[in-house]
Amino acid sequence: MSVITIERKVLEKNDAIAQQNRELFARHGVFALNLVSSPGAGKTSLLEKTLEHLRGTLPVAVIEGDVQTDLDAQRVARYGVPAVQIITRGGCHLEAHLIRDALANISLEGISLLIIENVGNLVCPSNYDLGEAMKVVIASTTEGDDKPLKYPAMFRNASVLIINKIDLVPYVNTSPATLKANALQINPSLLTFETSCTTGAGIPQWCDWLRRQALR
Amino acid sequence: MSVITIERKVLEKNDAIAQQNRELFARHGVFALNLVSSPGAGKTSLLEKTLEHLRGTLPVAVIEGDVQTDLDAQRVARYGVPAVQIITRGGCHLEAHLIRDALANISLEGISLLIIENVGNLVCPSNYDLGEAMKVVIASTTEGDDKPLKYPAMFRNASVLIINKIDLVPYVNTSPATLKANALQINPSLLTFETSCTTGAGIPQWCDWLRRQALR
Repeated sequence: MSVITIERKVLEKNDAIAQQNRELFARHGVFALNLVSSPGAGKTSLLEKTLEHLRGTLPVAVIEGDVQTDLDAQRVARYGVPAVQIITRGGCHLEAHLIRDALANISLEGISLLIIENVGNLVCPSNYDLGEAMKVVIASTTEGDDKPLKYPAMFRNASVLIINKIDLVPYVNTSPATLKANALQINPSLLTFETSCTTGAGIPQWCDWLRRQALR
Repeated sequence: MSVITIERKVLEKNDAIAQQNRELFARHGVFALNLVSSPGAGKTSLLEKTLEHLRGTLPVAVIEGDVQTDLDAQRVARYGVPAVQIITRGGCHLEAHLIRDALANISLEGISLLIIENVGNLVCPSNYDLGEAMKVVIASTTEGDDKPLKYPAMFRNASVLIINKIDLVPYVNTSPATLKANALQINPSLLTFETSCTTGAGIPQWCDWLRRQALR
Protein backbone atom coordinates (compact mmCIF):
# COMPACT_ATOMS: atom_id res chain seq x y z
CA MET A 1 0.00 0.00 0.00
CA SER A 2 1.63 3.24 -1.08
CA VAL A 3 1.29 6.78 0.26
CA ILE A 4 -0.12 7.78 -3.12
CA THR A 5 -2.99 5.34 -2.65
CA ILE A 6 -3.68 6.65 0.82
CA GLU A 7 -3.68 10.21 -0.48
CA ARG A 8 -6.11 9.33 -3.24
CA LYS A 9 -8.41 7.67 -0.70
CA VAL A 10 -8.18 10.75 1.53
CA LEU A 11 -9.12 12.99 -1.42
CA GLU A 12 -12.01 10.73 -2.47
CA LYS A 13 -13.38 10.69 1.05
CA ASN A 14 -12.93 14.47 1.22
CA ASP A 15 -14.78 14.98 -2.05
CA ALA A 16 -17.72 12.88 -0.87
CA ILE A 17 -18.10 15.01 2.28
CA ALA A 18 -17.59 18.20 0.25
CA GLN A 19 -20.52 17.14 -1.90
CA GLN A 20 -22.70 16.76 1.21
CA ASN A 21 -21.63 20.25 2.35
CA ARG A 22 -22.49 21.59 -1.12
CA GLU A 23 -25.95 20.04 -0.96
CA LEU A 24 -26.48 21.55 2.48
CA PHE A 25 -25.51 25.00 1.13
CA ALA A 26 -27.89 24.54 -1.81
CA ARG A 27 -30.79 23.58 0.48
CA HIS A 28 -30.28 26.78 2.50
CA GLY A 29 -29.55 29.02 -0.48
CA VAL A 30 -26.07 29.79 0.84
CA PHE A 31 -23.32 31.05 -1.47
CA ALA A 32 -20.08 29.64 -0.01
CA LEU A 33 -16.60 30.99 -0.73
CA ASN A 34 -13.24 29.41 0.07
CA LEU A 35 -10.72 32.22 0.63
CA VAL A 36 -7.12 31.08 0.01
CA SER A 37 -3.70 32.79 -0.09
CA SER A 38 -0.17 32.85 1.29
CA PRO A 39 0.15 33.76 4.96
CA GLY A 40 -0.11 37.53 5.32
CA ALA A 41 -1.64 38.29 1.91
CA GLY A 42 -4.55 39.92 3.71
CA LYS A 43 -7.35 37.32 3.88
CA THR A 44 -8.55 38.40 7.31
CA SER A 45 -8.20 42.13 6.59
CA LEU A 46 -10.16 41.72 3.35
CA LEU A 47 -12.76 39.69 5.24
CA GLU A 48 -13.10 42.48 7.82
CA LYS A 49 -13.50 45.14 5.12
CA THR A 50 -16.04 42.92 3.36
CA LEU A 51 -18.08 42.38 6.54
CA GLU A 52 -17.99 46.12 7.26
CA HIS A 53 -19.14 46.97 3.73
CA LEU A 54 -21.88 44.32 3.58
CA ARG A 55 -23.20 45.04 7.09
CA GLY A 56 -26.98 45.36 7.12
CA THR A 57 -27.35 44.39 3.45
CA LEU A 58 -26.53 40.69 3.44
CA PRO A 59 -26.62 38.01 6.17
CA VAL A 60 -23.12 36.54 6.36
CA ALA A 61 -21.48 33.75 8.38
CA VAL A 62 -17.78 32.98 8.66
CA ILE A 63 -15.66 29.87 9.25
CA GLU A 64 -12.06 30.66 10.19
CA GLY A 65 -9.31 28.10 9.58
CA ASP A 66 -5.97 28.45 11.36
CA VAL A 67 -3.06 26.24 12.28
CA GLN A 68 -3.05 27.69 15.78
CA THR A 69 -4.83 30.48 17.75
CA ASP A 70 -8.30 31.96 17.40
CA LEU A 71 -6.97 35.47 16.69
CA ASP A 72 -8.84 35.65 13.39
CA ALA A 73 -12.22 34.59 14.81
CA GLN A 74 -11.77 37.28 17.48
CA ARG A 75 -11.19 39.89 14.75
CA VAL A 76 -14.22 38.74 12.78
CA ALA A 77 -16.53 38.46 15.81
CA ARG A 78 -16.40 42.27 16.19
CA TYR A 79 -18.58 42.56 13.10
CA GLY A 80 -21.48 40.75 14.76
CA VAL A 81 -21.64 37.81 12.36
CA PRO A 82 -21.80 34.13 13.34
CA ALA A 83 -18.20 32.87 13.26
CA VAL A 84 -16.65 29.50 14.05
CA GLN A 85 -12.90 28.93 14.43
CA ILE A 86 -11.32 25.69 13.22
CA ILE A 87 -7.81 25.11 14.61
CA THR A 88 -5.99 22.46 12.57
CA ARG A 89 -3.20 21.97 15.16
CA GLY A 90 -0.44 21.82 12.58
CA GLY A 91 -2.59 20.80 9.62
CA CYS A 92 -1.71 22.79 6.50
CA HIS A 93 -5.20 23.08 4.96
CA LEU A 94 -8.91 22.75 5.71
CA GLU A 95 -10.78 19.58 4.74
CA ALA A 96 -14.46 19.03 4.07
CA HIS A 97 -15.08 17.08 7.29
CA LEU A 98 -13.76 20.04 9.35
CA ILE A 99 -16.27 22.30 7.59
CA ARG A 100 -19.05 19.76 8.21
CA ASP A 101 -18.18 19.76 11.93
CA ALA A 102 -18.01 23.57 12.03
CA LEU A 103 -21.41 23.79 10.31
CA ALA A 104 -22.90 21.89 13.26
CA ASN A 105 -22.16 25.08 15.24
CA ILE A 106 -23.69 27.60 12.80
CA SER A 107 -27.34 27.96 11.87
CA LEU A 108 -27.53 28.48 8.10
CA GLU A 109 -31.17 29.61 8.41
CA GLY A 110 -31.37 33.01 6.75
CA ILE A 111 -27.65 33.11 5.83
CA SER A 112 -26.95 34.15 2.21
CA LEU A 113 -23.15 34.15 2.21
CA LEU A 114 -20.68 31.87 3.98
CA ILE A 115 -17.03 32.89 3.82
CA ILE A 116 -14.52 30.19 4.73
CA GLU A 117 -11.03 31.56 5.41
CA ASN A 118 -8.55 28.76 4.76
CA VAL A 119 -5.12 28.27 6.35
CA GLY A 120 -2.50 30.59 4.85
CA ASN A 121 -0.86 28.29 2.32
CA LEU A 122 -0.59 28.69 -1.45
CA VAL A 123 -0.01 24.97 -2.10
CA CYS A 124 -1.97 22.43 -0.06
CA PRO A 125 -5.50 23.92 0.12
CA SER A 126 -5.73 23.85 -3.70
CA ASN A 127 -6.47 20.10 -3.70
CA TYR A 128 -9.25 20.11 -1.13
CA ASP A 129 -12.83 20.81 -2.11
CA LEU A 130 -14.79 22.03 0.93
CA GLY A 131 -18.12 22.15 -0.89
CA GLU A 132 -17.69 25.84 -1.76
CA ALA A 133 -19.20 27.51 -4.84
CA MET A 134 -15.77 28.84 -5.70
CA LYS A 135 -12.25 29.45 -4.46
CA VAL A 136 -11.09 33.07 -4.24
CA VAL A 137 -7.31 33.44 -4.26
CA ILE A 138 -5.74 36.60 -2.83
CA ALA A 139 -2.30 37.62 -4.07
CA SER A 140 -0.72 40.67 -2.49
CA THR A 141 1.44 43.04 -4.51
CA THR A 142 4.24 42.63 -1.96
CA GLU A 143 4.65 38.96 -2.92
CA GLY A 144 5.90 39.75 -6.42
CA ASP A 145 4.19 39.14 -9.75
CA ASP A 146 5.56 35.62 -10.40
CA LYS A 147 3.46 33.70 -7.86
CA PRO A 148 0.83 32.39 -10.35
CA LEU A 149 3.64 30.77 -12.38
CA LYS A 150 5.35 29.33 -9.31
CA TYR A 151 2.21 28.08 -7.54
CA PRO A 152 -0.07 27.33 -10.51
CA ALA A 153 -2.49 24.82 -8.97
CA MET A 154 -4.09 27.39 -6.69
CA PHE A 155 -4.62 29.88 -9.52
CA ARG A 156 -5.91 27.11 -11.81
CA ASN A 157 -8.48 25.95 -9.23
CA ALA A 158 -9.67 29.41 -8.25
CA SER A 159 -12.49 31.33 -9.96
CA VAL A 160 -11.58 34.77 -8.63
CA LEU A 161 -8.24 36.52 -8.10
CA ILE A 162 -8.02 39.48 -5.75
CA ILE A 163 -4.84 41.51 -6.14
CA ASN A 164 -4.56 43.03 -2.68
CA LYS A 165 -2.37 45.78 -1.16
CA ILE A 166 -2.43 47.82 -4.36
CA ASP A 167 -1.63 50.88 -2.20
CA LEU A 168 1.90 49.45 -1.82
CA VAL A 169 2.63 49.29 -5.56
CA PRO A 170 4.72 52.51 -5.50
CA TYR A 171 7.08 50.92 -2.95
CA VAL A 172 7.57 47.43 -4.40
CA ASN A 173 8.98 45.96 -7.57
CA THR A 174 5.68 44.37 -8.65
CA SER A 175 3.42 45.17 -11.59
CA PRO A 176 -0.25 44.32 -10.97
CA ALA A 177 -0.67 44.07 -14.77
CA THR A 178 2.08 41.44 -14.98
CA LEU A 179 0.67 39.60 -11.96
CA LYS A 180 -2.75 39.55 -13.65
CA ALA A 181 -1.29 38.45 -16.99
CA ASN A 182 0.63 35.63 -15.30
CA ALA A 183 -2.53 34.50 -13.52
CA LEU A 184 -4.58 34.60 -16.73
CA GLN A 185 -1.88 32.56 -18.47
CA ILE A 186 -2.51 29.81 -15.88
CA ASN A 187 -6.30 30.28 -15.82
CA PRO A 188 -7.85 32.45 -18.57
CA SER A 189 -11.29 32.44 -16.93
CA LEU A 190 -10.19 34.10 -13.67
CA LEU A 191 -12.25 37.11 -12.64
CA THR A 192 -9.96 39.72 -11.06
CA PHE A 193 -10.36 42.55 -8.58
CA GLU A 194 -7.75 44.99 -7.25
CA THR A 195 -8.13 46.03 -3.63
CA SER A 196 -6.49 47.83 -0.74
CA CYS A 197 -7.68 47.27 2.80
CA THR A 198 -5.73 50.38 3.85
CA THR A 199 -7.33 52.86 1.42
CA GLY A 200 -10.52 50.87 0.78
CA ALA A 201 -9.91 50.90 -2.98
CA GLY A 202 -11.77 48.19 -4.85
CA ILE A 203 -13.76 47.03 -1.81
CA PRO A 204 -17.13 48.36 -3.12
CA GLN A 205 -16.63 46.67 -6.53
CA TRP A 206 -15.72 43.35 -4.87
CA CYS A 207 -18.63 43.57 -2.42
CA ASP A 208 -21.14 44.52 -5.14
CA TRP A 209 -20.12 41.46 -7.14
CA LEU A 210 -20.29 39.31 -4.00
CA ARG A 211 -23.78 40.61 -3.16
CA ARG A 212 -25.01 39.84 -6.69
CA GLN A 213 -23.65 36.28 -6.47
CA ALA A 214 -25.16 35.69 -3.04
CA LEU A 215 -28.63 37.06 -3.90
CA ARG A 216 -29.17 35.55 -7.30
CA MET B 1 -2.96 0.95 8.65
CA SER B 2 -3.72 4.58 9.27
CA VAL B 3 -2.55 7.69 7.45
CA ILE B 4 -0.80 8.77 10.65
CA THR B 5 1.32 5.62 10.57
CA ILE B 6 2.24 6.22 6.95
CA GLU B 7 3.18 9.81 7.76
CA ARG B 8 5.38 8.69 10.64
CA LYS B 9 7.11 6.18 8.36
CA VAL B 10 7.66 8.89 5.73
CA LEU B 11 9.18 11.17 8.38
CA GLU B 12 11.40 8.39 9.76
CA LYS B 13 12.65 7.55 6.28
CA ASN B 14 13.22 11.26 5.61
CA ASP B 15 15.18 11.69 8.84
CA ALA B 16 17.46 8.75 7.98
CA ILE B 17 18.33 10.29 4.60
CA ALA B 18 18.70 13.73 6.19
CA GLN B 19 21.29 12.22 8.53
CA GLN B 20 23.23 10.89 5.50
CA ASN B 21 23.10 14.37 3.93
CA ARG B 22 24.33 15.86 7.23
CA GLU B 23 27.28 13.45 7.31
CA LEU B 24 28.12 14.33 3.70
CA PHE B 25 28.10 18.05 4.58
CA ALA B 26 30.35 17.35 7.59
CA ARG B 27 32.87 15.39 5.50
CA HIS B 28 33.15 18.32 3.08
CA GLY B 29 33.10 21.03 5.74
CA VAL B 30 29.91 22.51 4.26
CA PHE B 31 27.63 24.74 6.37
CA ALA B 32 24.11 24.06 5.04
CA LEU B 33 21.11 26.35 5.52
CA ASN B 34 17.44 25.62 4.88
CA LEU B 35 15.73 28.89 3.93
CA VAL B 36 11.97 28.83 4.63
CA SER B 37 9.13 31.37 4.43
CA SER B 38 5.70 32.18 3.00
CA PRO B 39 5.57 32.67 -0.78
CA GLY B 40 6.82 36.16 -1.59
CA ALA B 41 8.54 36.92 1.73
CA GLY B 42 11.74 37.49 -0.22
CA LYS B 43 13.75 34.25 0.00
CA THR B 44 15.16 34.52 -3.54
CA SER B 45 15.81 38.27 -3.30
CA LEU B 46 17.66 37.78 0.00
CA LEU B 47 19.59 34.92 -1.56
CA GLU B 48 20.61 37.15 -4.48
CA LYS B 49 21.74 39.95 -2.13
CA THR B 50 23.64 37.38 -0.06
CA LEU B 51 25.41 35.92 -3.11
CA GLU B 52 26.29 39.43 -4.28
CA HIS B 53 27.69 40.40 -0.89
CA LEU B 54 29.65 37.17 -0.35
CA ARG B 55 31.04 37.04 -3.90
CA GLY B 56 34.78 36.37 -3.90
CA THR B 57 34.93 35.82 -0.14
CA LEU B 58 33.18 32.49 0.32
CA PRO B 59 32.52 29.56 -2.05
CA VAL B 60 28.74 29.03 -2.11
CA ALA B 61 26.39 26.54 -3.79
CA VAL B 62 22.60 26.74 -4.02
CA ILE B 63 19.74 24.25 -4.25
CA GLU B 64 16.45 25.83 -5.34
CA GLY B 65 13.14 24.19 -4.47
CA ASP B 66 9.97 25.17 -6.32
CA VAL B 67 6.55 23.70 -7.01
CA GLN B 68 6.87 24.65 -10.67
CA THR B 69 9.30 26.59 -12.93
CA ASP B 70 13.07 27.12 -12.71
CA LEU B 71 12.72 30.93 -12.49
CA ASP B 72 14.64 31.04 -9.19
CA ALA B 73 17.58 28.95 -10.40
CA GLN B 74 17.83 31.29 -13.41
CA ARG B 75 17.98 34.29 -11.06
CA VAL B 76 20.64 32.65 -8.90
CA ALA B 77 22.75 31.39 -11.82
CA ARG B 78 23.61 35.02 -12.69
CA TYR B 79 25.84 35.13 -9.63
CA GLY B 80 28.13 32.44 -10.99
CA VAL B 81 27.53 29.88 -8.25
CA PRO B 82 26.71 26.19 -8.76
CA ALA B 83 22.90 25.94 -8.57
CA VAL B 84 20.50 23.02 -8.95
CA GLN B 85 16.73 23.39 -9.31
CA ILE B 86 14.37 20.88 -7.74
CA ILE B 87 10.81 21.07 -9.09
CA THR B 88 8.40 19.28 -6.76
CA ARG B 89 5.53 19.20 -9.31
CA GLY B 90 2.85 20.11 -6.81
CA GLY B 91 4.73 18.96 -3.70
CA CYS B 92 4.46 21.48 -0.87
CA HIS B 93 7.93 21.05 0.69
CA LEU B 94 11.41 19.67 0.04
CA GLU B 95 12.38 16.27 1.44
CA ALA B 96 15.82 14.85 2.25
CA HIS B 97 15.86 12.44 -0.70
CA LEU B 98 15.32 15.34 -3.13
CA ILE B 99 18.37 17.07 -1.62
CA ARG B 100 20.38 13.83 -1.88
CA ASP B 101 19.47 13.58 -5.57
CA ALA B 102 20.30 17.27 -6.16
CA LEU B 103 23.68 16.79 -4.45
CA ALA B 104 24.57 14.23 -7.10
CA ASN B 105 24.66 17.20 -9.48
CA ILE B 106 26.83 19.52 -7.35
CA SER B 107 30.45 19.02 -6.41
CA LEU B 108 30.85 19.95 -2.74
CA GLU B 109 34.66 20.03 -3.11
CA GLY B 110 35.79 23.46 -1.92
CA ILE B 111 32.23 24.64 -1.07
CA SER B 112 31.89 26.28 2.37
CA LEU B 113 28.22 27.28 2.32
CA LEU B 114 25.19 25.52 0.81
CA ILE B 115 21.94 27.47 0.79
CA ILE B 116 18.80 25.44 0.18
CA GLU B 117 15.77 27.56 -0.73
CA ASN B 118 12.67 25.63 0.22
CA VAL B 119 9.19 25.85 -1.35
CA GLY B 120 7.29 28.96 -0.20
CA ASN B 121 5.16 27.51 2.57
CA LEU B 122 5.05 28.44 6.24
CA VAL B 123 3.55 25.12 7.34
CA CYS B 124 4.73 21.91 5.69
CA PRO B 125 8.53 22.39 5.38
CA SER B 126 8.78 22.74 9.18
CA ASN B 127 8.52 18.98 9.68
CA TYR B 128 11.16 17.90 7.18
CA ASP B 129 14.83 17.77 8.14
CA LEU B 130 16.98 18.04 5.00
CA GLY B 131 20.28 17.52 6.83
CA GLU B 132 20.83 21.27 7.22
CA ALA B 133 22.79 22.86 10.08
CA MET B 134 19.85 25.15 10.71
CA LYS B 135 16.57 26.50 9.36
CA VAL B 136 16.39 30.23 8.65
CA VAL B 137 12.84 31.58 8.57
CA ILE B 138 12.13 34.82 6.72
CA ALA B 139 9.09 36.85 7.75
CA SER B 140 8.37 39.99 5.76
CA THR B 141 6.93 43.08 7.43
CA THR B 142 4.09 43.10 4.91
CA GLU B 143 2.74 39.81 6.31
CA GLY B 144 1.80 41.35 9.67
CA ASP B 145 3.34 40.74 13.08
CA ASP B 146 1.11 37.83 14.15
CA LYS B 147 2.58 35.10 11.94
CA PRO B 148 4.82 33.47 14.60
CA LEU B 149 1.72 32.93 16.76
CA LYS B 150 -0.36 31.61 13.87
CA TYR B 151 2.32 29.36 12.32
CA PRO B 152 4.35 28.43 15.41
CA ALA B 153 6.02 25.19 14.23
CA MET B 154 8.20 26.95 11.67
CA PHE B 155 9.40 29.55 14.18
CA ARG B 156 9.96 26.85 16.83
CA ASN B 157 12.09 24.73 14.46
CA ALA B 158 14.15 27.62 13.05
CA SER B 159 17.39 28.92 14.57
CA VAL B 160 17.40 32.28 12.80
CA LEU B 161 14.61 34.75 11.99
CA ILE B 162 15.14 37.35 9.28
CA ILE B 163 12.61 40.18 9.36
CA ASN B 164 12.69 41.27 5.73
CA LYS B 165 11.26 44.27 3.83
CA ILE B 166 11.93 46.62 6.75
CA ASP B 167 11.91 49.47 4.20
CA LEU B 168 8.12 48.98 3.95
CA VAL B 169 7.45 49.50 7.68
CA PRO B 170 6.26 53.11 7.17
CA TYR B 171 3.54 51.90 4.80
CA VAL B 172 2.17 48.87 6.65
CA ASN B 173 0.49 48.25 9.97
CA THR B 174 3.26 45.99 11.29
CA SER B 175 5.69 46.54 14.15
CA PRO B 176 9.01 44.68 13.70
CA ALA B 177 9.42 44.82 17.50
CA THR B 178 6.07 43.04 17.99
CA LEU B 179 6.91 40.53 15.26
CA LYS B 180 10.21 39.80 17.00
CA ALA B 181 8.58 39.57 20.45
CA ASN B 182 5.95 37.15 19.10
CA ALA B 183 8.69 35.01 17.51
CA LEU B 184 10.74 34.98 20.74
CA GLN B 185 7.63 33.98 22.66
CA ILE B 186 7.47 30.84 20.47
CA ASN B 187 11.26 30.29 20.41
CA PRO B 188 13.36 32.30 22.89
CA SER B 189 16.65 31.17 21.33
CA LEU B 190 15.96 32.64 17.86
CA LEU B 191 18.73 34.85 16.49
CA THR B 192 17.17 37.74 14.56
CA PHE B 193 18.25 40.03 11.74
CA GLU B 194 16.36 42.88 10.08
CA THR B 195 16.93 43.32 6.34
CA SER B 196 15.78 45.10 3.23
CA CYS B 197 16.72 43.80 -0.21
CA THR B 198 15.65 47.17 -1.66
CA THR B 199 17.87 49.43 0.46
CA GLY B 200 20.44 46.76 1.40
CA ALA B 201 19.93 47.46 5.11
CA GLY B 202 21.04 44.60 7.35
CA ILE B 203 22.60 42.57 4.51
CA PRO B 204 26.23 43.14 5.70
CA GLN B 205 25.37 42.07 9.26
CA TRP B 206 23.58 38.93 8.04
CA CYS B 207 26.41 38.06 5.64
CA ASP B 208 29.12 38.66 8.26
CA TRP B 209 27.37 36.25 10.60
CA LEU B 210 26.92 33.75 7.76
CA ARG B 211 30.61 33.97 6.84
CA ARG B 212 31.66 33.37 10.44
CA GLN B 213 29.41 30.28 10.64
CA ALA B 214 30.67 28.88 7.35
CA LEU B 215 34.37 29.41 8.08
CA ARG B 216 34.58 28.28 11.68
